[in-house]
Amino acid sequence: MIITQKIDSLYEEMVEIRRHLHMNPELSHQEIATPAFIAEQLEAMGVEVRRNVGGRGVVGTIRGGKPGKTIAFRADFDALPIDDQKDVSYKSTVPGVMHACGHDGHTAALLGFAKAMVAIQKDLPGTIVLIHQFGEELSPGGARAMIEDGCLDGVDAIFGAHLQSKLDAGRVYLRDGFLQASEDAIKIIVRGSGTHGAEPHQGIDPILVASHIMVALQSIVSRNADPLKELVVSIGKFQAGDADNVISSKAVLEGTIRVFDPELRILAGQRLRTIVENVASAMGATAELIIETGYDSLWNHPTETDIVRAAAREVLGDEYVMEIDPIMPVEDFTYYTQAKPGAFFFVGAKMDDENVVYPHHHESFDFNENAMLVTTKVFAAIYFEAQECTADSIPVDLDSI
Amino acid sequence: MIITQKIDSLYEEMVEIRRHLHMNPELSHQEIATPAFIAEQLEAMGVEVRRNVGGRGVVGTIRGGKPGKTIAFRADFDALPIDDQKDVSYKSTVPGVMHACGHDGHTAALLGFAKAMVAIQKDLPGTIVLIHQFGEELSPGGARAMIEDGCLDGVDAIFGAHLQSKLDAGRVYLRDGFLQASEDAIKIIVRGSGTHGAEPHQGIDPILVASHIMVALQSIVSRNADPLKELVVSIGKFQAGDADNVISSKAVLEGTIRVFDPELRILAGQRLRTIVENVASAMGATAELIIETGYDSLWNHPTETDIVRAAAREVLGDEYVMEIDPIMPVEDFTYYTQAKPGAFFFVGAKMDDENVVYPHHHESFDFNENAMLVTTKVFAAIYFEAQECTADSIPVDLDSI
Amino acid sequence: MIITQKIDSLYEEMVEIRRHLHMNPELSHQEIATPAFIAEQLEAMGVEVRRNVGGRGVVGTIRGGKPGKTIAFRADFDALPIDDQKDVSYKSTVPGVMHACGHDGHTAALLGFAKAMVAIQKDLPGTIVLIHQFGEELSPGGARAMIEDGCLDGVDAIFGAHLQSKLDAGRVYLRDGFLQASEDAIKIIVRGSGTHGAEPHQGIDPILVASHIMVALQSIVSRNADPLKELVVSIGKFQAGDADNVISSKAVLEGTIRVFDPELRILAGQRLRTIVENVASAMGATAELIIETGYDSLWNHPTETDIVRAAAREVLGDEYVMEIDPIMPVEDFTYYTQAKPGAFFFVGAKMDDENVVYPHHHESFDFNENAMLVTTKVFAAIYFEAQECTADSIPVDLDSI
Amino acid sequence: MIITQKIDSLYEEMVEIRRHLHMNPELSHQEIATPAFIAEQLEAMGVEVRRNVGGRGVVGTIRGGKPGKTIAFRADFDALPIDDQKDVSYKSTVPGVMHACGHDGHTAALLGFAKAMVAIQKDLPGTIVLIHQFGEELSPGGARAMIEDGCLDGVDAIFGAHLQSKLDAGRVYLRDGFLQASEDAIKIIVRGSGTHGAEPHQGIDPILVASHIMVALQSIVSRNADPLKELVVSIGKFQAGDADNVISSKAVLEGTIRVFDPELRILAGQRLRTIVENVASAMGATAELIIETGYDSLWNHPTETDIVRAAAREVLGDEYVMEIDPIMPVEDFTYYTQAKPGAFFFVGAKMDDENVVYPHHHESFDFNENAMLVTTKVFAAIYFEAQECTADSIPVDLDSI
Repeated sequence: MIITQKIDSLYEEMVEIRRHLHMNPELSHQEIATPAFIAEQLEAMGVEVRRNVGGRGVVGTIRGGKPGKTIAFRADFDALPIDDQKDVSYKSTVPGVMHACGHDGHTAALLGFAKAMVAIQKDLPGTIVLIHQFGEELSPGGARAMIEDGCLDGVDAIFGAHLQSKLDAGRVYLRDGFLQASEDAIKIIVRGSGTHGAEPHQGIDPILVASHIMVALQSIVSRNADPLKELVVSIGKFQAGDADNVISSKAVLEGTIRVFDPELRILAGQRLRTIVENVASAMGATAELIIETGYDSLWNHPTETDIVRAAAREVLGDEYVMEIDPIMPVEDFTYYTQAKPGAFFFVGAKMDDENVVYPHHHESFDFNENAMLVTTKVFAAIYFEAQECTADSIPVDLDSI
Repeated sequence: MIITQKIDSLYEEMVEIRRHLHMNPELSHQEIATPAFIAEQLEAMGVEVRRNVGGRGVVGTIRGGKPGKTIAFRADFDALPIDDQKDVSYKSTVPGVMHACGHDGHTAALLGFAKAMVAIQKDLPGTIVLIHQFGEELSPGGARAMIEDGCLDGVDAIFGAHLQSKLDAGRVYLRDGFLQASEDAIKIIVRGSGTHGAEPHQGIDPILVASHIMVALQSIVSRNADPLKELVVSIGKFQAGDADNVISSKAVLEGTIRVFDPELRILAGQRLRTIVENVASAMGATAELIIETGYDSLWNHPTETDIVRAAAREVLGDEYVMEIDPIMPVEDFTYYTQAKPGAFFFVGAKMDDENVVYPHHHESFDFNENAMLVTTKVFAAIYFEAQECTADSIPVDLDSI
Repeated sequence: MIITQKIDSLYEEMVEIRRHLHMNPELSHQEIATPAFIAEQLEAMGVEVRRNVGGRGVVGTIRGGKPGKTIAFRADFDALPIDDQKDVSYKSTVPGVMHACGHDGHTAALLGFAKAMVAIQKDLPGTIVLIHQFGEELSPGGARAMIEDGCLDGVDAIFGAHLQSKLDAGRVYLRDGFLQASEDAIKIIVRGSGTHGAEPHQGIDPILVASHIMVALQSIVSRNADPLKELVVSIGKFQAGDADNVISSKAVLEGTIRVFDPELRILAGQRLRTIVENVASAMGATAELIIETGYDSLWNHPTETDIVRAAAREVLGDEYVMEIDPIMPVEDFTYYTQAKPGAFFFVGAKMDDENVVYPHHHESFDFNENAMLVTTKVFAAIYFEAQECTADSIPVDLDSI
Repeated sequence: MIITQKIDSLYEEMVEIRRHLHMNPELSHQEIATPAFIAEQLEAMGVEVRRNVGGRGVVGTIRGGKPGKTIAFRADFDALPIDDQKDVSYKSTVPGVMHACGHDGHTAALLGFAKAMVAIQKDLPGTIVLIHQFGEELSPGGARAMIEDGCLDGVDAIFGAHLQSKLDAGRVYLRDGFLQASEDAIKIIVRGSGTHGAEPHQGIDPILVASHIMVALQSIVSRNADPLKELVVSIGKFQAGDADNVISSKAVLEGTIRVFDPELRILAGQRLRTIVENVASAMGATAELIIETGYDSLWNHPTETDIVRAAAREVLGDEYVMEIDPIMPVEDFTYYTQAKPGAFFFVGAKMDDENVVYPHHHESFDFNENAMLVTTKVFAAIYFEAQECTADSIPVDLDSI
């Protein structure tokens, strides 16, 4: 397949772009140089570009010479507030800011894909929409704003991928249906009434109230959730009191809700509120639950997941395309698949050297750059699969370009 | 003191009466023969008798020949639904009914006291009111009905005693203020929603709700009660469910509240209700608290307790009059001291043979009959103390009677 | 497909057999007439029969005229201790015993299948093993004993089906991997120390201890289980105490554990034991956990499930073959698929009249007898699929039989 | 009583001393100028002085001219780390250090008492020991060190008093038996195992464990303590976790135990340890309980309390001597009454102006200086009562001094 040779030939360029981005990371919702760089790259290829989409996003459009479907691909480009501790030549030059999640790789791969496809633009059926998204790491994210600003207008289906530093390089991982959880941050403020520790009856002990709440909210998962549906309610922080012999007036709990099923998400929130308010009342205290809504769970459409499955098998071979369980981390790609048919998948990006394998968001995070090549090739295969044709059927002489 | 000699001479008679009553016990609120017997005894002495006071009570009045205060003494006469297992000649002849609390002794002692005082009636200052009360063992008791029926009319002060099988014979035990607790029976009905044990999310688990209530109500004593005040909230019964793999729709808890301070009693009830209702709400269930109000706590008036103290010291000597801690069992004598100044005290009645010492309400319960003599003598001394005179000052020739 | 016509022609006979069994139900592990009847039926067809397999089981063997694989099919034949309340001509004639789960239908379908296959025996590749199993409803079940007694010897794959009164008739329901949960019965005995309700400090309150255990064991599901794996721990029964004002010495909880993953099943049992014993120790009590191990979870082998899927699609059409979620009830078919490759599936058997649709184990339970026809046809298709041939390829003239 | 006139005449001097001390406070166990000042004052009166007793204590001895008992009086002289916010001429001159508990008043009163008694030394029966104690506010206190250094050698009985800013001036408050609680500081360190909030099964949640401990330890008061005995177990501080979506590895609780009965104190500590360790084990965690032992509870000997009662009634009149409930704050005077017969009492010291009434340890704390006069006079009366004589019986001509 001639297009994969073209992609192979772009590998060095992708690595260069990725490393440039890696050295110049920008925090979510503060991206200026990155979208400018992307736009310039696309324009240099001759791609039609719209800037500031939904704020800081960049959308490129490659209109093929033949009729066909409009297929979108998305890459996010924001970095994290982490100080890069790697000892590599392409280490972040911005103190406290780092591409510790691989978005630089996503961006480089999507630019590589664009360049490869532009090469066969004339003979291409359909239209490619390149969605370069800002702010994925920080709710409310950039996806919704870009969608509201029209990035999906006319799009028939959308696809996206995420590199995974802990999954084997050279493989693609996917599943139908729920792939990533929704996340909501919760804060519970219990207000009792302070008193001397020796005179508990003069006050209302907020630590006891909050402890009862903590214990009671285990029942949301153990009793209220359908055992066949996944739900996590965790409290990570419990802060109350300043002195051993003084009963304080307040206790604060902070936690997270992770769930796939949107109805169960609503139920969990309702049950939390009921428990928090009523357990507090039971003990003579008051309590408030604040839910800071995060991203929805990410749901892959079966038909589009089949397209990814077929494409990945074609590129990698059947045994390198793995069905996986859903995962708990969140992803605002969900808003694209809520608006249009689409699917998201993972590309294994484990470093060859096991000693430098770190989880995402780690200060030593890095990924296997070959994964960009896999991403780009699978994107291309997806595009042809989505057009119900194959790259082989495109009679272009790439060598002549 | 010549009156005590008179009382000594009546001992055999008191024992006889007590044993007659012991062999013919009658359950609370079902007493027929007992009050009739008492009334006959009093009439035989020439005491003015009112029958059926407040239902089944008997009130005798001994009007002294001289002016003075009206002082009441109370003895209860009901028995318990316990099968007498003692091997004595005076064992209960009624299967399943037994004087297992010593009320037979109280009655015999008060009749002995009456007989002794009648002997000096002409020279006696003041008036003696003999309150023979029914139904003490079973709420609502007989005291309130007798008071409503006028048994305390014109009474200046009231006194009563209880034999104690575990306290040393030959001693009197007393204290100012709270002597015995109040008791309320509680019933908590938790209504959840039944479901298969494998599908908890289809129902509401009443066992979990009730367990949370059980755990939470510990805080009433540990956090809401003044640490300097005594309170007990106990659940004795927890019944829920029929099958291991079916979540039932109901759980029932039954328990008791014991407390001295009436305000804390109210607070405990309020806190219970708040916990029961709100913990149930927290878990999506409903729950109901039913409080069956029992006797109030018994409070000894300090002045009248001083009278008892002085009288007992006179009769027994200082070292045989003991200050004690309050106790948790209940006593409807409280309603007399709510209506009039008064005091209640304990008379040690431990058997000489340690092998036959049993607690009250035990099927082998018995008491040292000498305690009746102590009771009678202390009653006499109380009467004189209350009149602010002494037996010695009464110039009667008892031998001539 | 000529074999399905043969099966259609046997429908009346299957109904007759099913109704005969329905009228003559026998309890688990007490089956006598039923296996005798089955053996006679098979022998009458000319099937080679082994009786008393593993106790009360019957195994028939149909050796085809051509070489091929040995494929087993299982039907269970025991009934339940339920009193039949239906108003039908074939109502149970045994008071208190009833085929309330459809095992009569399983048996009739397997006999029908045998008769149909015997008709083409000469031309058949491979060997059919007919496993008529006793005692499925009551642990330890009959499957393990029959396996130990050799019923799976030489078998290449095994298949089984269960009628489902709540699922649409004319459909087959299946899934890869875990289909039914494991079940363990649990009993928790908490031993405290009895005392008067007013003197809690003299004893150890087993109701409070058991309540703490009840609350704490919610954490097994909420904290210890992988959120992606299904687990239920339910307590259906909590019994303690006789009187409201007496703290008893014992509390007993009974419940159930349901889980698919065997490792999580072990973990749940360990966590339960740790919680039960240590929470009791924490409160000064002792507690014992008794786990009565029930059936393992049922796991369908993917390849054999694919065979069922393909067979069912062939018989019913794609749109009548449904992928389903796993279910919590148990099935001892698991022991067959632990020993050999195999798959279990559900056959929709909802009554046409919605008014007589009842759950399994209900006293008015009945099922749509057409489901037997579906079962038999799918069994036949499975057999050919498993032999990697089709019924069409068998050149038999069924009409001539 | 001529001695009280002498004391009255010393009032201005006491006020002066008290204000001098108030302006020059020294922290517990850092006192230098204060004991030096006290020693100089006593020496100036001609009192025999021993310095550096037990470290920083001062002991004065006044040997009367006649034989009699040796009676000790104690005043503490340390100040608190509080910044004086009063607007008075005698405000603390040391930033951050303040006599916010009235120890300055105790010292001035004891010096006034010494001066008054020295005036009649020749005719005085017995010996007066003046114990000026350091470090009362800060465990381990100064009492034990001074006792070990002999301050109670030869002493027959010891007395002490504490001013109370919230109790009515002109009154003395006392009780037999337990007057002040013991205090122990507790710290509970729960060690779980950290994990991502979305993967609770990978770790052990220390917040849940600590919450279960918090809830369970309520049972120490509600179930393990005799309802007739006072006990408080309070947790004032609960600190765990840094992020809402991360399960931390540690939770720390800090609290206090207050109790009068030493056996119950031991029981409470044992029960705490059992709960902490076993609840942690139940949840798969470990936990450690650290008890930092504070002062024992203060117990007044009945005979010596009677001496105080009689003395105070003589000085103030019966209606100004109040029986009170025990209080929860601690006092290291307990070590004197553990070593010798003794009693401690409170002297009402409420300011006349209600607007300047503040609790002890408050930055605006002040007290009614007339209370020093009451203290001194009651000390004198106690001394004579303890000698079984009266001031009147001492034929001294105070005017001649």
